[in-house]
Amino acid sequence: MEPIIKGDSALVVFSGGQDSTTCLFWALKHFKSVRTITFGYGQKHSAEIECAKAIAAKAGVDFHYMDVSFISQLGRNSLTDTTMEMDQTKPQDNFPNTFVPGRNLFFLSIAAVYARELGIRDLVTGVSQTDFSGYPDCRDSFIKSLNVTLNLAMDEQFVIHTPLMWINKAQTWEMADHLGVLDLVRNETLTCYNGVKGDGCGHCPACKLRSAGLETYLTSKDS
Amino acid sequence: MEPIIKGDSALVVFSGGQDSTTCLFWALKHFKSVRTITFGYGQKHSAEIECAKAIAAKAGVDFHYMDVSFISQLGRNSLTDTTMEMDQTKPQDNFPNTFVPGRNLFFLSIAAVYARELGIRDLVTGVSQTDFSGYPDCRDSFIKSLNVTLNLAMDEQFVIHTPLMWINKAQTWEMADHLGVLDLVRNETLTCYNGVKGDGCGHCPACKLRSAGLETYLTSKDS
Repeated sequence: MEPIIKGDSALVVFSGGQDSTTCLFWALKHFKSVRTITFGYGQKHSAEIECAKAIAAKAGVDFHYMDVSFISQLGRNSLTDTTMEMDQTKPQDNFPNTFVPGRNLFFLSIAAVYARELGIRDLVTGVSQTDFSGYPDCRDSFIKSLNVTLNLAMDEQFVIHTPLMWINKAQTWEMADHLGVLDLVRNETLTCYNGVKGDGCGHCPACKLRSAGLETYLTSKDS
Repeated sequence: MEPIIKGDSALVVFSGGQDSTTCLFWALKHFKSVRTITFGYGQKHSAEIECAKAIAAKAGVDFHYMDVSFISQLGRNSLTDTTMEMDQTKPQDNFPNTFVPGRNLFFLSIAAVYARELGIRDLVTGVSQTDFSGYPDCRDSFIKSLNVTLNLAMDEQFVIHTPLMWINKAQTWEMADHLGVLDLVRNETLTCYNGVKGDGCGHCPACKLRSAGLETYLTSKDS
Protein backbone atom coordinates (compact mmCIF):
# COMPACT_ATOMS: atom_id res chain seq x y z
CA MET A 1 0.00 0.00 0.00
CA GLU A 2 1.48 3.32 -1.06
CA PRO A 3 1.40 6.09 1.54
CA ILE A 4 -1.05 8.82 0.47
CA ILE A 5 1.17 11.65 1.62
CA LYS A 6 4.89 11.41 1.10
CA GLY A 7 7.62 13.37 2.82
CA ASP A 8 9.68 15.74 0.69
CA SER A 9 13.18 14.38 0.65
CA ALA A 10 15.39 11.99 2.56
CA LEU A 11 19.05 11.01 2.68
CA VAL A 12 19.80 7.30 3.14
CA VAL A 13 23.05 6.14 4.75
CA PHE A 14 23.78 3.46 2.21
CA SER A 15 26.35 0.66 2.25
CA GLY A 16 25.03 -1.61 -0.49
CA GLY A 17 24.21 -4.31 2.09
CA GLN A 18 20.88 -6.00 2.75
CA ASP A 19 19.72 -3.63 5.47
CA SER A 20 20.50 -0.28 3.90
CA THR A 21 19.24 -1.42 0.48
CA THR A 22 15.92 -2.39 2.03
CA CYS A 23 15.89 1.05 3.71
CA LEU A 24 16.59 2.74 0.37
CA PHE A 25 13.46 1.20 -1.15
CA TRP A 26 11.51 1.98 2.05
CA ALA A 27 12.59 5.62 1.62
CA LEU A 28 11.58 5.64 -2.05
CA LYS A 29 8.10 4.61 -0.94
CA HIS A 30 7.82 7.28 1.76
CA PHE A 31 9.61 10.30 0.25
CA LYS A 32 9.24 12.17 -3.03
CA SER A 33 12.97 12.59 -3.45
CA VAL A 34 15.70 10.30 -2.16
CA ARG A 35 19.48 10.56 -2.13
CA THR A 36 22.16 8.25 -0.78
CA ILE A 37 25.49 8.74 0.94
CA THR A 38 28.07 5.94 1.02
CA PHE A 39 31.21 5.87 3.16
CA GLY A 40 34.60 4.34 2.50
CA TYR A 41 36.56 3.80 5.72
CA GLY A 42 39.24 1.39 4.63
CA GLN A 43 37.01 -1.68 4.98
CA LYS A 44 38.74 -4.70 3.47
CA HIS A 45 36.03 -5.26 0.89
CA SER A 46 35.56 -2.12 -1.11
CA ALA A 47 33.47 -4.36 -3.37
CA GLU A 48 30.53 -3.22 -1.27
CA ILE A 49 31.02 0.34 -2.51
CA GLU A 50 30.69 -0.91 -6.10
CA CYS A 51 27.51 -2.77 -5.14
CA ALA A 52 26.11 0.39 -3.56
CA LYS A 53 26.85 2.41 -6.69
CA ALA A 54 25.20 -0.14 -8.97
CA ILE A 55 22.08 -0.39 -6.81
CA ALA A 56 21.76 3.41 -6.56
CA ALA A 57 21.95 3.62 -10.36
CA LYS A 58 19.28 0.95 -10.72
CA ALA A 59 17.04 2.75 -8.19
CA GLY A 60 17.61 6.03 -10.03
CA VAL A 61 18.89 7.92 -6.97
CA ASP A 62 21.85 10.20 -6.46
CA PHE A 63 24.95 8.38 -5.16
CA HIS A 64 27.41 10.41 -3.08
CA TYR A 65 30.64 8.77 -1.96
CA MET A 66 32.75 10.04 0.92
CA ASP A 67 36.15 8.90 2.06
CA VAL A 68 36.20 8.70 5.86
CA SER A 69 39.29 6.57 6.24
CA PHE A 70 40.27 8.63 9.29
CA ILE A 71 37.90 6.29 11.18
CA SER A 72 40.23 3.33 10.75
CA GLN A 73 43.20 5.33 12.02
CA LEU A 74 41.44 5.84 15.35
CA GLY A 75 41.35 2.29 16.64
CA ARG A 76 42.09 -1.28 15.64
CA ASN A 77 39.32 -3.50 14.33
CA SER A 78 39.19 -6.57 12.14
CA LEU A 79 37.09 -4.95 9.38
CA THR A 80 39.89 -2.56 8.41
CA ASP A 81 42.99 -4.31 9.78
CA THR A 82 44.03 -7.26 7.63
CA THR A 83 46.43 -8.57 10.29
CA MET A 84 43.56 -9.33 12.69
CA GLU A 85 41.45 -12.47 12.61
CA MET A 86 37.74 -11.67 12.71
CA ASP A 87 35.77 -12.69 15.81
CA GLN A 88 33.14 -15.21 14.74
CA THR A 89 31.06 -14.75 17.89
CA LYS A 90 30.78 -12.00 20.49
CA PRO A 91 33.46 -12.42 23.20
CA GLN A 92 32.00 -12.64 26.73
CA ASP A 93 33.50 -9.44 28.14
CA ASN A 94 34.02 -7.28 25.09
CA PHE A 95 32.66 -6.15 21.75
CA PRO A 96 33.46 -8.39 18.78
CA ASN A 97 36.61 -7.08 17.05
CA THR A 98 34.45 -6.30 14.01
CA PHE A 99 33.23 -3.28 16.03
CA VAL A 100 34.52 -0.04 14.50
CA PRO A 101 34.27 2.42 17.42
CA GLY A 102 32.20 5.43 16.51
CA ARG A 103 31.25 4.19 13.05
CA ASN A 104 27.53 4.98 13.14
CA LEU A 105 28.27 8.13 15.13
CA PHE A 106 30.47 9.43 12.29
CA PHE A 107 28.28 8.15 9.46
CA LEU A 108 25.14 9.83 10.79
CA SER A 109 26.93 13.01 11.87
CA ILE A 110 28.50 13.47 8.43
CA ALA A 111 25.20 12.57 6.76
CA ALA A 112 23.46 15.25 8.83
CA VAL A 113 25.91 18.01 7.89
CA TYR A 114 25.70 16.97 4.23
CA ALA A 115 21.88 16.78 4.36
CA ARG A 116 21.72 20.23 5.91
CA GLU A 117 23.67 21.66 2.96
CA LEU A 118 21.09 20.11 0.62
CA GLY A 119 18.13 21.34 2.67
CA ILE A 120 17.24 17.78 3.71
CA ARG A 121 16.08 17.05 7.27
CA ASP A 122 15.11 13.37 7.07
CA LEU A 123 17.87 10.79 7.49
CA VAL A 124 17.38 7.05 7.06
CA THR A 125 19.62 4.34 8.51
CA GLY A 126 19.33 0.55 8.57
CA VAL A 127 20.55 -0.03 12.12
CA SER A 128 18.64 -2.61 14.12
CA GLN A 129 18.64 -3.23 17.84
CA THR A 130 17.18 -6.70 17.28
CA ASP A 131 20.18 -8.11 15.44
CA PHE A 132 22.70 -5.70 16.86
CA SER A 133 25.52 -8.24 17.28
CA GLY A 134 26.75 -6.53 20.43
CA TYR A 135 27.42 -3.17 18.77
CA PRO A 136 26.25 -0.38 21.10
CA ASP A 137 25.88 2.08 18.23
CA CYS A 138 23.00 0.10 16.75
CA ARG A 139 20.76 0.56 19.78
CA ASP A 140 17.65 2.71 19.73
CA SER A 141 18.74 4.82 22.72
CA PHE A 142 22.01 5.72 20.96
CA ILE A 143 20.20 6.78 17.78
CA LYS A 144 17.70 8.92 19.71
CA SER A 145 20.42 10.55 21.78
CA LEU A 146 22.40 11.26 18.61
CA ASN A 147 19.29 12.76 16.97
CA VAL A 148 19.01 15.26 19.83
CA THR A 149 22.76 15.96 19.74
CA LEU A 150 22.70 16.67 15.99
CA ASN A 151 19.76 19.04 16.39
CA LEU A 152 21.57 20.90 19.17
CA ALA A 153 24.88 20.95 17.24
CA MET A 154 23.36 22.73 14.26
CA ASP A 155 20.15 24.21 15.65
CA GLU A 156 18.15 22.05 13.25
CA GLN A 157 15.24 19.61 13.30
CA PHE A 158 16.67 16.44 11.82
CA VAL A 159 14.63 13.26 12.06
CA ILE A 160 16.51 9.96 11.96
CA HIS A 161 14.31 7.17 10.59
CA THR A 162 15.19 3.56 11.52
CA PRO A 163 12.73 1.31 9.68
CA LEU A 164 14.55 -1.86 10.82
CA MET A 165 15.12 -0.96 14.47
CA TRP A 166 12.68 -3.43 16.00
CA ILE A 167 12.52 -6.14 13.37
CA ASN A 168 14.74 -9.18 12.88
CA LYS A 169 16.44 -10.41 9.71
CA ALA A 170 13.46 -12.57 8.66
CA GLN A 171 11.18 -9.55 8.94
CA THR A 172 13.69 -7.46 6.99
CA TRP A 173 13.41 -9.97 4.15
CA GLU A 174 9.64 -9.73 4.46
CA MET A 175 9.86 -5.95 4.17
CA ALA A 176 12.02 -6.24 1.04
CA ASP A 177 9.48 -8.65 -0.42
CA HIS A 178 6.58 -6.27 0.29
CA LEU A 179 8.60 -3.47 -1.31
CA GLY A 180 8.97 -5.67 -4.41
CA VAL A 181 12.75 -6.00 -4.18
CA LEU A 182 13.38 -9.38 -2.58
CA ASP A 183 15.33 -10.69 -5.57
CA LEU A 184 17.30 -7.49 -5.97
CA VAL A 185 18.28 -7.52 -2.29
CA ARG A 186 19.10 -11.21 -2.41
CA ASN A 187 21.29 -11.06 -5.53
CA GLU A 188 22.79 -7.61 -5.70
CA THR A 189 23.62 -6.59 -2.15
CA LEU A 190 26.79 -7.41 -0.23
CA THR A 191 26.59 -8.16 3.50
CA CYS A 192 29.30 -10.84 3.75
CA TYR A 193 32.42 -10.01 5.81
CA ASN A 194 34.45 -11.91 3.21
CA GLY A 195 33.28 -9.69 0.35
CA VAL A 196 31.12 -12.18 -1.56
CA LYS A 197 28.00 -10.64 -3.17
CA GLY A 198 24.51 -12.11 -2.92
CA ASP A 199 24.29 -15.26 -0.79
CA GLY A 200 27.90 -14.65 0.31
CA CYS A 201 30.59 -16.97 1.69
CA GLY A 202 28.00 -18.68 3.88
CA HIS A 203 30.15 -19.05 6.98
CA CYS A 204 30.96 -15.56 8.37
CA PRO A 205 28.68 -14.16 11.13
CA ALA A 206 26.96 -11.76 8.70
CA CYS A 207 26.18 -14.52 6.18
CA LYS A 208 24.84 -16.82 8.88
CA LEU A 209 22.49 -14.12 10.19
CA ARG A 210 21.36 -13.23 6.67
CA SER A 211 20.72 -16.77 5.42
CA ALA A 212 18.99 -17.89 8.62
CA GLY A 213 16.64 -14.90 8.27
CA LEU A 214 15.95 -15.64 4.63
CA GLU A 215 15.23 -19.28 5.36
CA THR A 216 12.85 -18.37 8.19
CA TYR A 217 11.02 -15.91 5.98
CA LEU A 218 10.74 -18.18 2.93
CA THR A 219 9.54 -21.09 5.11
CA SER A 220 6.87 -18.96 6.78
CA LYS A 221 5.78 -17.61 3.39
CA ASP A 222 5.36 -21.09 1.93
CA SER A 223 3.46 -22.47 4.88
CA MET B 1 45.78 26.26 45.16
CA GLU B 2 46.71 22.81 43.89
CA PRO B 3 43.96 20.17 44.04
CA ILE B 4 44.87 17.51 46.65
CA ILE B 5 43.60 14.63 44.56
CA LYS B 6 44.19 14.65 40.83
CA GLY B 7 42.41 12.63 38.18
CA ASP B 8 44.44 10.04 36.30
CA SER B 9 44.60 11.22 32.72
CA ALA B 10 42.86 13.59 30.37
CA LEU B 11 42.85 14.39 26.66
CA VAL B 12 42.60 18.07 25.71
CA VAL B 13 41.09 19.15 22.38
CA PHE B 14 43.78 21.65 21.57
CA SER B 15 43.93 24.30 18.84
CA GLY B 16 46.76 26.51 20.09
CA GLY B 17 44.33 29.37 20.73
CA GLN B 18 43.70 31.28 23.95
CA ASP B 19 40.86 29.10 25.20
CA SER B 20 42.25 25.64 24.62
CA THR B 21 45.71 26.67 25.86
CA THR B 22 44.15 27.89 29.11
CA CYS B 23 42.32 24.54 29.26
CA LEU B 24 45.56 22.65 28.72
CA PHE B 25 47.11 24.28 31.80
CA TRP B 26 43.86 23.76 33.73
CA ALA B 27 44.11 20.05 32.84
CA LEU B 28 47.76 19.89 33.92
CA LYS B 29 46.66 21.16 37.32
CA HIS B 30 43.82 18.65 37.70
CA PHE B 31 45.17 15.46 36.09
CA LYS B 32 48.35 13.43 36.63
CA SER B 33 48.80 12.81 32.92
CA VAL B 34 47.66 15.02 30.05
CA ARG B 35 47.68 14.56 26.28
CA THR B 36 46.49 16.80 23.47
CA ILE B 37 44.79 16.23 20.13
CA THR B 38 44.87 18.90 17.40
CA PHE B 39 42.79 18.91 14.23
CA GLY B 40 43.58 20.23 10.79
CA TYR B 41 40.42 20.82 8.76
CA GLY B 42 41.66 23.02 5.97
CA GLN B 43 41.45 26.22 8.01
CA LYS B 44 43.15 29.08 6.18
CA HIS B 45 45.70 29.66 8.89
CA SER B 46 47.53 26.44 9.56
CA ALA B 47 49.89 28.65 11.57
CA GLU B 48 47.68 27.80 14.53
CA ILE B 49 48.73 24.15 14.25
CA GLU B 50 52.39 25.23 14.56
CA CYS B 51 51.48 27.29 17.64
CA ALA B 52 49.72 24.29 19.16
CA LYS B 53 52.75 22.07 18.58
CA ALA B 54 55.14 24.59 20.12
CA ILE B 55 52.96 25.12 23.20
CA ALA B 56 52.50 21.36 23.71
CA ALA B 57 56.28 20.92 23.59
CA LYS B 58 56.74 23.72 26.12
CA ALA B 59 54.11 22.18 28.41
CA GLY B 60 55.77 18.76 28.03
CA VAL B 61 52.63 16.98 26.82
CA ASP B 62 52.05 14.58 23.95
CA PHE B 63 50.89 16.30 20.75
CA HIS B 64 48.73 14.27 18.36
CA TYR B 65 47.73 15.78 15.03
CA MET B 66 44.81 14.55 12.96
CA ASP B 67 43.80 15.59 9.47
CA VAL B 68 40.01 15.98 9.36
CA SER B 69 39.81 17.95 6.15
CA PHE B 70 36.65 16.01 5.23
CA ILE B 71 34.86 18.56 7.45
CA SER B 72 35.47 21.38 4.97
CA GLN B 73 34.13 19.28 2.08
CA LEU B 74 30.76 19.06 3.82
CA GLY B 75 29.65 22.65 3.69
CA ARG B 76 30.85 26.13 2.79
CA ASN B 77 32.24 28.41 5.47
CA SER B 78 34.60 31.37 5.48
CA LEU B 79 37.24 29.71 7.69
CA THR B 80 38.10 27.15 5.02
CA ASP B 81 36.87 28.79 1.82
CA THR B 82 39.20 31.56 0.66
CA THR B 83 36.64 32.90 -1.82
CA MET B 84 34.25 33.95 0.96
CA GLU B 85 34.47 37.18 2.90
CA MET B 86 34.30 36.58 6.65
CA ASP B 87 31.23 37.85 8.52
CA GLN B 88 32.40 40.45 11.03
CA THR B 89 29.21 40.25 13.09
CA LYS B 90 26.46 37.69 13.47
CA PRO B 91 23.80 38.11 10.73
CA GLN B 92 20.27 38.59 12.12
CA ASP B 93 18.71 35.40 10.79
CA ASN B 94 21.63 33.04 10.41
CA PHE B 95 24.90 31.80 11.87
CA PRO B 96 27.98 33.84 11.00
CA ASN B 97 29.68 32.27 7.95
CA THR B 98 32.65 31.46 10.20
CA PHE B 99 30.45 28.61 11.54
CA VAL B 100 31.84 25.23 10.42
CA PRO B 101 28.80 22.94 10.77
CA GLY B 102 29.52 19.99 13.02
CA ARG B 103 33.03 21.10 13.95
CA ASN B 104 32.86 20.50 17.70
CA LEU B 105 30.71 17.43 17.10
CA PHE B 106 33.49 15.87 15.02
CA PHE B 107 36.37 17.12 17.18
CA LEU B 108 34.91 15.68 20.38
CA SER B 109 33.69 12.46 18.74
CA ILE B 110 37.11 11.76 17.26
CA ALA B 111 38.79 12.73 20.53
CA ALA B 112 36.55 10.26 22.37
CA VAL B 113 37.38 7.33 20.08
CA TYR B 114 41.09 8.18 20.28
CA ALA B 115 40.91 8.59 24.09
CA ARG B 116 39.19 5.21 24.42
CA GLU B 117 42.07 3.54 22.59
CA LEU B 118 44.46 5.10 25.12
CA GLY B 119 42.29 4.15 28.10
CA ILE B 120 41.44 7.79 28.79
CA ARG B 121 37.91 8.76 29.85
CA ASP B 122 38.28 12.48 30.64
CA LEU B 123 38.04 14.93 27.74
CA VAL B 124 38.66 18.66 28.05
CA THR B 125 37.39 21.32 25.64
CA GLY B 126 37.53 25.11 25.73
CA VAL B 127 34.03 25.81 24.43
CA SER B 128 32.15 28.59 26.18
CA GLN B 129 28.46 29.40 26.09
CA THR B 130 29.18 32.90 27.39
CA ASP B 131 31.12 34.06 24.34
CA PHE B 132 29.59 31.58 21.92
CA SER B 133 29.38 34.00 18.96
CA GLY B 134 26.15 32.41 17.75
CA TYR B 135 27.65 28.93 17.30
CA PRO B 136 25.16 26.34 18.57
CA ASP B 137 27.90 23.75 19.11
CA CYS B 138 29.43 25.80 21.91
CA ARG B 139 26.36 25.60 24.12
CA ASP B 140 26.27 23.62 27.34
CA SER B 141 23.18 21.63 26.31
CA PHE B 142 24.93 20.45 23.12
CA ILE B 143 28.01 19.33 25.05
CA LYS B 144 25.95 17.43 27.63
CA SER B 145 23.84 15.78 24.95
CA LEU B 146 26.99 14.79 23.07
CA ASN B 147 28.50 13.38 26.27
CA VAL B 148 25.50 11.04 26.64
CA THR B 149 25.61 10.15 22.94
CA LEU B 150 29.32 9.25 23.10
CA ASN B 151 28.76 7.07 26.15
CA LEU B 152 25.91 5.25 24.40
CA ALA B 153 27.86 4.93 21.13
CA MET B 154 30.75 3.09 22.77
CA ASP B 155 29.22 1.86 26.04
CA GLU B 156 31.70 3.98 27.98
CA GLN B 157 31.73 6.57 30.75
CA PHE B 158 33.41 9.58 29.16
CA VAL B 159 33.30 12.87 31.04
CA ILE B 160 33.60 16.05 28.99
CA HIS B 161 35.09 18.88 31.06
CA THR B 162 34.37 22.47 29.99
CA PRO B 163 36.30 24.77 32.36
CA LEU B 164 35.34 27.88 30.35
CA MET B 165 31.64 27.13 29.76
CA TRP B 166 30.23 29.81 32.06
CA ILE B 167 33.00 32.40 32.12
CA ASN B 168 33.66 35.28 29.76
CA LYS B 169 36.92 36.26 28.06
CA ALA B 170 38.04 38.52 30.93
CA GLN B 171 37.57 35.64 33.36
CA THR B 172 39.45 33.32 30.99
CA TRP B 173 42.41 35.71 31.19
CA GLU B 174 42.03 35.68 34.97
CA MET B 175 42.13 31.88 34.95
CA ALA B 176 45.29 31.89 32.82
CA ASP B 177 46.85 34.35 35.27
CA HIS B 178 45.97 32.16 38.27
CA LEU B 179 47.46 29.19 36.43
CA GLY B 180 50.65 31.20 35.99
CA VAL B 181 50.50 31.33 32.19
CA LEU B 182 49.10 34.76 31.35
CA ASP B 183 52.18 35.82 29.39
CA LEU B 184 52.43 32.49 27.60
CA VAL B 185 48.77 32.66 26.56
CA ARG B 186 49.11 36.29 25.55
CA ASN B 187 52.24 35.87 23.43
CA GLU B 188 52.25 32.34 22.09
CA THR B 189 48.66 31.45 21.26
CA LEU B 190 46.84 32.21 18.03
CA THR B 191 43.16 33.16 18.13
CA CYS B 192 43.07 35.71 15.28
CA TYR B 193 41.02 34.81 12.18
CA ASN B 194 43.75 36.46 10.11
CA GLY B 195 46.46 34.16 11.43
CA VAL B 196 48.47 36.65 13.49
CA LYS B 197 49.95 35.21 16.70
CA GLY B 198 49.75 36.88 20.13
CA ASP B 199 47.78 40.13 20.14
CA GLY B 200 46.68 39.40 16.55
CA CYS B 201 45.47 41.65 13.74
CA GLY B 202 43.35 43.61 16.19
CA HIS B 203 40.28 44.04 13.98
CA CYS B 204 38.74 40.59 13.33
CA PRO B 205 35.88 39.43 15.64
CA ALA B 206 38.15 37.00 17.50
CA CYS B 207 40.80 39.68 18.17
CA LYS B 208 38.21 42.19 19.36
CA LEU B 209 36.74 39.69 21.81
CA ARG B 210 40.19 38.67 23.04
CA SER B 211 41.61 42.16 23.53
CA ALA B 212 38.44 43.54 25.15
CA GLY B 213 38.60 40.67 27.65
CA LEU B 214 42.26 41.26 28.37
CA GLU B 215 41.72 44.96 28.88
CA THR B 216 38.81 44.33 31.26
CA TYR B 217 40.87 41.84 33.25
CA LEU B 218 44.02 43.98 33.47
CA THR B 219 41.98 47.04 34.48
CA SER B 220 40.14 45.15 37.23
CA LYS B 221 43.44 43.67 38.45
CA ASP B 222 45.08 47.10 38.71
CA SER B 223 42.18 48.71 40.52
